[in-house]
Amino acid sequence: MGLDPDFKKHRIEDLAAYNRAIIAATAPYAAVYKPNIAFYEQHGIPGLRALEETLAAIPAGIPVIGDIKRGDIGSTAEAYARAAFEIWKFDAVTLNGYQGLDTVAPFLAYEGKGAYVLCRTSNPSSREFQEQPLANGTLLFEHVAVTAASWSPAVGLVVGATAPAELRRVRELLPTVTLLVPGVGAQGGRPEEVVVAAGAVPGSMVVNASRSIMYAADGPDFAEAAGEAARQLRDELNAAALAAR
Amino acid sequence: MGLDPDFKKHRIEDLAAYNRAIIAATAPYAAVYKPNIAFYEQHGIPGLRALEETLAAIPAGIPVIGDIKRGDIGSTAEAYARAAFEIWKFDAVTLNGYQGLDTVAPFLAYEGKGAYVLCRTSNPSSREFQEQPLANGTLLFEHVAVTAASWSPAVGLVVGATAPAELRRVRELLPTVTLLVPGVGAQGGRPEEVVVAAGAVPGSMVVNASRSIMYAADGPDFAEAAGEAARQLRDELNAAALAAR
Repeated sequence: MGLDPDFKKHRIEDLAAYNRAIIAATAPYAAVYKPNIAFYEQHGIPGLRALEETLAAIPAGIPVIGDIKRGDIGSTAEAYARAAFEIWKFDAVTLNGYQGLDTVAPFLAYEGKGAYVLCRTSNPSSREFQEQPLANGTLLFEHVAVTAASWSPAVGLVVGATAPAELRRVRELLPTVTLLVPGVGAQGGRPEEVVVAAGAVPGSMVVNASRSIMYAADGPDFAEAAGEAARQLRDELNAAALAAR
Repeated sequence: MGLDPDFKKHRIEDLAAYNRAIIAATAPYAAVYKPNIAFYEQHGIPGLRALEETLAAIPAGIPVIGDIKRGDIGSTAEAYARAAFEIWKFDAVTLNGYQGLDTVAPFLAYEGKGAYVLCRTSNPSSREFQEQPLANGTLLFEHVAVTAASWSPAVGLVVGATAPAELRRVRELLPTVTLLVPGVGAQGGRPEEVVVAAGAVPGSMVVNASRSIMYAADGPDFAEAAGEAARQLRDELNAAALAAR
């Protein structure tokens, strides 16, 4: 469940309360929460205070993936890891691996934490680089998948729900790697397609939806509607997983 | 001039004052300041307050590159652009283009601002992906260079000082693109090598040094030593540029 507040829909003073209501309504159905930090950073320091309050409202026992897509090297990567795991206390993060293992290693030094490396993302222009054919006959995202997964069992991969053929390909290459699959719901990815493409092995995949749940309704029933949308998506995913076994 | 405070060297309460002293001493010699936001994020919200104070101490007229290496898509990329240009008021940023133009476009929508896209970085493992040979006979960083530069004249490229051969190659491919070249000083890049490799055309290159200036001395003369180190590097770069013409 993404916690990605739309800039136009909130006064910053009301954001934490909105998120608290969304969390209370969706916690029975959410396996994981995934705030994308950009939506808090866009409000400056008050936005990060709202993130703090949002994280405090997540029930203990539901893990949090910090969608931060950071990528830097050396002492800078260590600084980002410190921010992610010591300040925000995320259980896992998303990272951009363009700079190689140096980017990811400082995050892997934290025991019990995880890192999802961007592989094949859900946006239209992701093909520009990610689907470049390499001289060795593979595509760049396939090379990224295999290389990143070789770094550690704590590395998962981000593969968008809007690219089911590529999702299937990554699963073929890496039958047991954990996949983080955003893009279900508002971005157009279909749950049953995702489950079939990525495999129905329990625990092998985190499917994310954000806007379609957080803004399921605009009125005073927004939280109730979010809970209902979360429950529906969970049921759809579970049914698809059962059917695919 | 990088403004990248070492985690171990500062109590967070003293960080802004240290930076103010460094800025006062180096401003006569710095063409640009480049804070890497990771070093502030690692201290949590108090760190970002110190960044605020640091930015306020930079004299008007010296541009600031926000070294943020963000990379996301759609409304998330818009949120990061809002944070960079409306909250922090950076003049330019560094970005990771693995997700293609979608990542960079929201930043280019701000007139008068610039974006440096990661091309060939200065770290050891950068080769894992950036030097992958493509089926079309080029290397990935060459393809990234040409593609990213085609998006807009407001796009520059990040090419590390520790890879002079690749720097020369990018300059051959793109004679007029602006290059941001980190890695001089503590990381081992040599100024005269960088100037020869990247071309001595005025305004075509920003060379960055951080630790070798910020921590030129450990004692109470740290600011004086930083100013002296900044002056020396500026003189070295200017002499190399004159010699290379």
